[in-house]
Amino acid sequence: MMDTQEFHLFPSDYLKDFSAKVFMHFGVPEADARQAADVLAKSDLRGIDSHGVARLHTYFDMLVLGRINPKPNIKIVREKLSVATVDGDNGLGLVVGPKANEIAIEKAEKYGSGWVSVRHTNHFGIAGYYPLKALERDLIGWAMTNTTKLVTPLYGAERMLGTNPIAIAFPGYKEPPIVIDMATSAVAYGKIEMALRKKAKIPRGWIVDKEGRATTDPQDMIAGGAQLPLGSEADIGGHKGYALGAMVDILCAVLSGANWGPFAPPFALRQEIPSRSVGKGIGHFFGAMQIDGFIDKDEFKKQIDEWRRVLRSTKPAAGTSGPLIPGDPEREAEAIRSKEEIPLLKPVVDDLLDVAKKTGVPFEAS
Amino acid sequence: MMDTQEFHLFPSDYLKDFSAKVFMHFGVPEADARQAADVLAKSDLRGIDSHGVARLHTYFDMLVLGRINPKPNIKIVREKLSVATVDGDNGLGLVVGPKANEIAIEKAEKYGSGWVSVRHTNHFGIAGYYPLKALERDLIGWAMTNTTKLVTPLYGAERMLGTNPIAIAFPGYKEPPIVIDMATSAVAYGKIEMALRKKAKIPRGWIVDKEGRATTDPQDMIAGGAQLPLGSEADIGGHKGYALGAMVDILCAVLSGANWGPFAPPFALRQEIPSRSVGKGIGHFFGAMQIDGFIDKDEFKKQIDEWRRVLRSTKPAAGTSGPLIPGDPEREAEAIRSKEEIPLLKPVVDDLLDVAKKTGVPFEAS
Repeated sequence: MMDTQEFHLFPSDYLKDFSAKVFMHFGVPEADARQAADVLAKSDLRGIDSHGVARLHTYFDMLVLGRINPKPNIKIVREKLSVATVDGDNGLGLVVGPKANEIAIEKAEKYGSGWVSVRHTNHFGIAGYYPLKALERDLIGWAMTNTTKLVTPLYGAERMLGTNPIAIAFPGYKEPPIVIDMATSAVAYGKIEMALRKKAKIPRGWIVDKEGRATTDPQDMIAGGAQLPLGSEADIGGHKGYALGAMVDILCAVLSGANWGPFAPPFALRQEIPSRSVGKGIGHFFGAMQIDGFIDKDEFKKQIDEWRRVLRSTKPAAGTSGPLIPGDPEREAEAIRSKEEIPLLKPVVDDLLDVAKKTGVPFEAS
Repeated sequence: MMDTQEFHLFPSDYLKDFSAKVFMHFGVPEADARQAADVLAKSDLRGIDSHGVARLHTYFDMLVLGRINPKPNIKIVREKLSVATVDGDNGLGLVVGPKANEIAIEKAEKYGSGWVSVRHTNHFGIAGYYPLKALERDLIGWAMTNTTKLVTPLYGAERMLGTNPIAIAFPGYKEPPIVIDMATSAVAYGKIEMALRKKAKIPRGWIVDKEGRATTDPQDMIAGGAQLPLGSEADIGGHKGYALGAMVDILCAVLSGANWGPFAPPFALRQEIPSRSVGKGIGHFFGAMQIDGFIDKDEFKKQIDEWRRVLRSTKPAAGTSGPLIPGDPEREAEAIRSKEEIPLLKPVVDDLLDVAKKTGVPFEAS
C-alpha cells in the first residue's frame, strides 16, 4: 500500500519534542506545550496523519498571527455539580481540551458523571484522544467538537456546519477497548483533497456542487461546493448525518456560548472569515461516566470482551474478511508505529523545516 | 399524496382510550395503561404511523403469551448521584421507559444531569417521546434503545444489531424546539416492507443479500439479507452508522445488563428467538441535562431560535425548498392531526377490530 520512497521516517518522541519546543517558542508554558504535543503525537501514532504534526504549521500560523493565546486563563464560568461550562480564553484547543476533559473526569468520579461544554477554544486535535484519557481512569468517555463550516445540511447548497466529530470509548477486560471516533460528514475532507491531487473522480455522496447537485468531480468542492453529511442523500439517510452534525454543533457551541454553525472561526489561513460572530471561539463538549454507578465494572468489561468476540464472528460479506471493531485499525497502527517510526510525506517534512527555520527550533530531516 | 379512500379516520383520544382499555384488560394498572396509550398516541399524532396503534396488536400478542409483565416492580438496582440502572421487571417498554426517563429528569434537576440505563424492558415506542418530556421541564433530553437484530455491521452478511435509534431535543425561546429522532440504520424497516408490498425496487444502500452483497431487490431482505447501517457502504461511511449502532447497543444493553447485539429478544411473533441470552430483556438509555448548569437558559433558547433561522436560510439545493430543521415534519403533522383525525390504513383497523373482539373492549370502525 505504502510507497516508502515517498515517506521520511521519524521516531514519535522526536516529533513530539519538536512540537513542544515550537509551542514553547511562542510562550506556551512547558507543561502545556508538552500536553499539546502529546495530542498531536497520539494522532500520528494512531495513523490519523491528517491531525498530527501535519497540522503543526497551521498552529504555528495561528500563533504567529496572534490568533491563539499562548497563556490562557482557562476557567469554569458556570457549573452545577455534574455539569459545567469552561471558557478556554482563546488558548490552543490542544491545551484547553485536555483541561476541560479532566474536569469532566473529576466530576464523573465525584457525581457519577461529568459533562463539560467549552467555549472560546480552538482546534483540539483528534476527538478520540479524550475518551482514551477517560479509559485510563476506568470511565466511559465522550468528546465532540464543532469545526469550521464544510458541510451542507441535506437539501442545501451551502457550507453551514463543520465535520463535527463524535468520539466515545468503552473499556474491555482482557480485550482492547472499543473506541469510536467519527466525523458526522460522509467522508473526511482529506479524501477529497487526495482525489484533487490525483485528478481522480470521487464516489457520489461525498459532495455537492455550488447548486447543491450530486457530483463526482472533486473540483466542484473548491468551486463553491460543500461536503455532504453522513448518509449523503435523501433516500439513504442524509437527514440523519445532518441531525448528528446539528447535535454536536449545539452541545459544543450553543450550550457553551461559542460560535455555532457557519460562524465557527476558521482554523487555517486559506479558510474564509465568517460574516459575523455569535459567541466566542469554537466549542467542544466532553463527557465521562462512572461504570460502577451503573453496573459492576468487571462484569461490564467482560461483556464488552464478549461483545467484541460476537461481533467479530459475524458472517463476513462476500469478498471481505468481515466486520471490524471500532478503534481496531487505529490501535493496530499504534502498535506498529510505537515500535517503528512515524512516516511523514515530503510536503509535511518541508512544512516542519519551514517552522524550524522561522522559530529557530532545530529539526533534522532524515 | 394521501389516497383518502385507503384511510379510516379516528380522533386521537378515541384511539388512546381504546389502547388504554386493552392494556387494562391484561391487568395493567390504569395509570400505567394510560401512560402506555399516551406514547402510542403521540407517535400517531406526530405522523410516525409505524410506531402508534399500528403496533397495538403486537403488544396484545406479547401480553396474551405472557411475555410481558403487566404489573412490573420497576426499580433502581444501582445508582451513584447523577447515574443509575433501572430494572423494568419485564414490563411494557411504554411504562418502563417513561418511569426511567422521569428518574433521569429528577436526577438532572438535582445534580445538573441524569443518566439512566435500563434492563429487562421491552419496546418503548418512539424514542422522540422521551426528550419531549424533558423539554416540558426545560431540560435537554436524550433517549436511545436497542432493538431486535435487523442490521449488519459493515462488511458483514448477518443481522447483528437493531435499528437502535438516538433521540435528543433542545428547547427554543419563541420558536419550536429542535427534536432529533433517528434510527442508526440507513432506512426504517417499514420502507423495505412497503417496497415488498408494491413489488418495487429499492435504492442501493438500504440492504445487502444473505452473502452481504449490494442489492436493490427487497426480496433479498426476507431471503436472509440484512439492513445496512447509516452511511450504507464502505466508501460513504457505513462504518460510522455501524459505530453509532454499537454505541447505542452498549449504552442501553451492556451498561444495564440487558441482552445486547444479536441476543436482543424479538418484539413480534414472526421474529426469530435468539440462540442465547446474555442479560435481561432489551435495554434503553435516557439522559437529561439542566441548561442553567451550563449557560443562562433564556440566552440558550434565544440562540436556538437564531440557529433555526440561520439554518433555514441556507441556500437551497436546486429543485428543493431547502433544508429542514430536525423535528419540524413531525411537529407539523402533530399540528394538523391534533385538529383533525388520525388516518389508519384498513389492515390496521382490522387489527384493532381483532383486538377488540378478543378482549371485549369496544371499538367502532368509522
